[in-house]
Amino acid sequence: MVFTAKKTVLLLFSKNDLMYGMHQETYLTGVKPTGDIHLGNYFGAISPALSLAKDHPSAKKFFFIADYHALTTIKDTKQMSDYRYHVAAAWLAFFEGVEGCDFYFQSCIPEIFELYWILSCFCPKGLLNRAHAYKALTAQNKEIGHDDDRNINQGVFSYPVLMAADILLFHATKIPIGPDQKQHVEIAIDIVQHLNRQLQVPIPVPEPVIQENTPLILGIDGQKMSKNYQNTIPIFESEAALKKQISKIQTDSKPLGEPLNSNDCMVFQLHQLMASAEATQQMQAEYSSGCIGYGHAKQRLLAAMLDFFSPARARFFELIHQRDQIDALIQSSLSNVQTVATANLRAIKSSLGVSC
Amino acid sequence: MVFTAKKTVLLLFSKNDLMYGMHQETYLTGVKPTGDIHLGNYFGAISPALSLAKDHPSAKKFFFIADYHALTTIKDTKQMSDYRYHVAAAWLAFFEGVEGCDFYFQSCIPEIFELYWILSCFCPKGLLNRAHAYKALTAQNKEIGHDDDRNINQGVFSYPVLMAADILLFHATKIPIGPDQKQHVEIAIDIVQHLNRQLQVPIPVPEPVIQENTPLILGIDGQKMSKNYQNTIPIFESEAALKKQISKIQTDSKPLGEPLNSNDCMVFQLHQLMASAEATQQMQAEYSSGCIGYGHAKQRLLAAMLDFFSPARARFFELIHQRDQIDALIQSSLSNVQTVATANLRAIKSSLGVSC
Repeated sequence: MVFTAKKTVLLLFSKNDLMYGMHQETYLTGVKPTGDIHLGNYFGAISPALSLAKDHPSAKKFFFIADYHALTTIKDTKQMSDYRYHVAAAWLAFFEGVEGCDFYFQSCIPEIFELYWILSCFCPKGLLNRAHAYKALTAQNKEIGHDDDRNINQGVFSYPVLMAADILLFHATKIPIGPDQKQHVEIAIDIVQHLNRQLQVPIPVPEPVIQENTPLILGIDGQKMSKNYQNTIPIFESEAALKKQISKIQTDSKPLGEPLNSNDCMVFQLHQLMASAEATQQMQAEYSSGCIGYGHAKQRLLAAMLDFFSPARARFFELIHQRDQIDALIQSSLSNVQTVATANLRAIKSSLGVSC
Repeated sequence: MVFTAKKTVLLLFSKNDLMYGMHQETYLTGVKPTGDIHLGNYFGAISPALSLAKDHPSAKKFFFIADYHALTTIKDTKQMSDYRYHVAAAWLAFFEGVEGCDFYFQSCIPEIFELYWILSCFCPKGLLNRAHAYKALTAQNKEIGHDDDRNINQGVFSYPVLMAADILLFHATKIPIGPDQKQHVEIAIDIVQHLNRQLQVPIPVPEPVIQENTPLILGIDGQKMSKNYQNTIPIFESEAALKKQISKIQTDSKPLGEPLNSNDCMVFQLHQLMASAEATQQMQAEYSSGCIGYGHAKQRLLAAMLDFFSPARARFFELIHQRDQIDALIQSSLSNVQTVATANLRAIKSSLGVSC
């Protein structure tokens, strides 16, 4: 039996592919600009995203600065503007030369927000009542005897729907996330299953890619490194500022000359992430023998960090003082991103009978 | 003392005008396409809007078909498409020749939805918990022992925020509404007061224009005329269909020859709304003397209705079979509407630090 060319092509794909059309593998990652990029961001999100991007050269990769998500908490004009350019410059610096990546500001794609409304009409409100992040906030209010929704704005309550719009507008198939964000992708899946019943061409159901093995990065006080705890080590600061911050890393009070325990030492752990295998081995030996003190170890950590981030820091400082250049780099992705957004929204609107 | 020209102009405005800049009086009315236009819609909304438009020839008047609001309940492609063109054709027919009116489909203005998200971030969730329409739905669920939010989608919960975006994007100053919708404008006022603290140029605070004196139109069963009760008399049906529907109006069972009570008679009340003063007087006399029966009165009602709506019906039937023509008429407003939407959203985004 002889297949026509078309049939042969179709046979290469699974039943699921046929049901949903043949979708190109598409990764999508959003980055909320709510602070300056620090080591926790790099090892928790940027580095895994870089590995994924390099491992999947032929996949589409969308990266966006989720400035409108940040608006749920950041209301200051200058702070918003500074953070969005800081985060954009950082990601552009890290991804320079990586193939197939499109970067954009969420606030430059109006289709996301139109889809956000559409998805609201297909999202049972109960789904949002049960969102972990929202429930954590109401629990805090309850605990101190306040009204459940005190100081919670509607953006905070509905942001899983905006996340779903971010994902579904671009027919993203793979969503790299930390384990704590699994529920967000599940909500997007739930919504798209409701919506797909109405669409002539269904939207692919996205899949979380859970990054289990990212190291837990501790801040200078020993808690998880997070802007919320004011314990971060930022990456794009002056050498003097970095030195000062690293000097504040908590250690035990063993005097110089006594052996140090590398397993319990945040200085050692951070150094290990950025230093060569040889340098780590050497530091391990010095910890065991007691011939290094914490002051000296912190100097080594600073040097390793400056060396590890040297190319990214150079590019970042070039970009951050020329916002026009950041805009121009993003503009070069934007026409591609905009074409996808326009076509995908148009198809959805047509299925819903609201074409313009 | 001699005023400069500028000062003289400023003195013509109140302190409030100065605070918010000098705003042109702008009326805004949204029409949800969830059914065919009937007498209740005409006398409750269209006729008052026509009077306002004619009484304020120099004000801006925005009318929009709120198709995306309808999406909270209408998920069928053909039904949505049919209703939005039906409602558009009806309003265009009624407003033909009225100066200064712009018509548009809500779904053609993406800026509304971007503003909708922005406003979500400035809207306390508690405001929406207390919205009457939402509370009525949860009360129904409670009554039958269901979860409060059963069958309530997020679009239903958050639609007061979309309404606020409809209003605030166009700097509308006057919002004609029925008394039951007062809370929606109050929510918009609450949100804009939160947002204005962040804006370089504040958005004018809208004002509800409550239409208290619109007649209550009863349906063929004696309840308020509403699509929900399936008791409407549609305006743009064939004569045969209208005749059939009018024949179903409930009356008492007085036999021909006995005097009829015009105060209690829906046929008389509806006739009075559409007939000339002379025709009403004549029918009143016939009711009192008992020389007219309900069958005959219903024939008169049909004739009065066909006469009253004759120009609008002619124009409607012309338009409804040529959707291109509806699109073209709306397109002619759209560039004006779009210019306002783009400029106003850009100013808000700039104040929030998310300019593109």
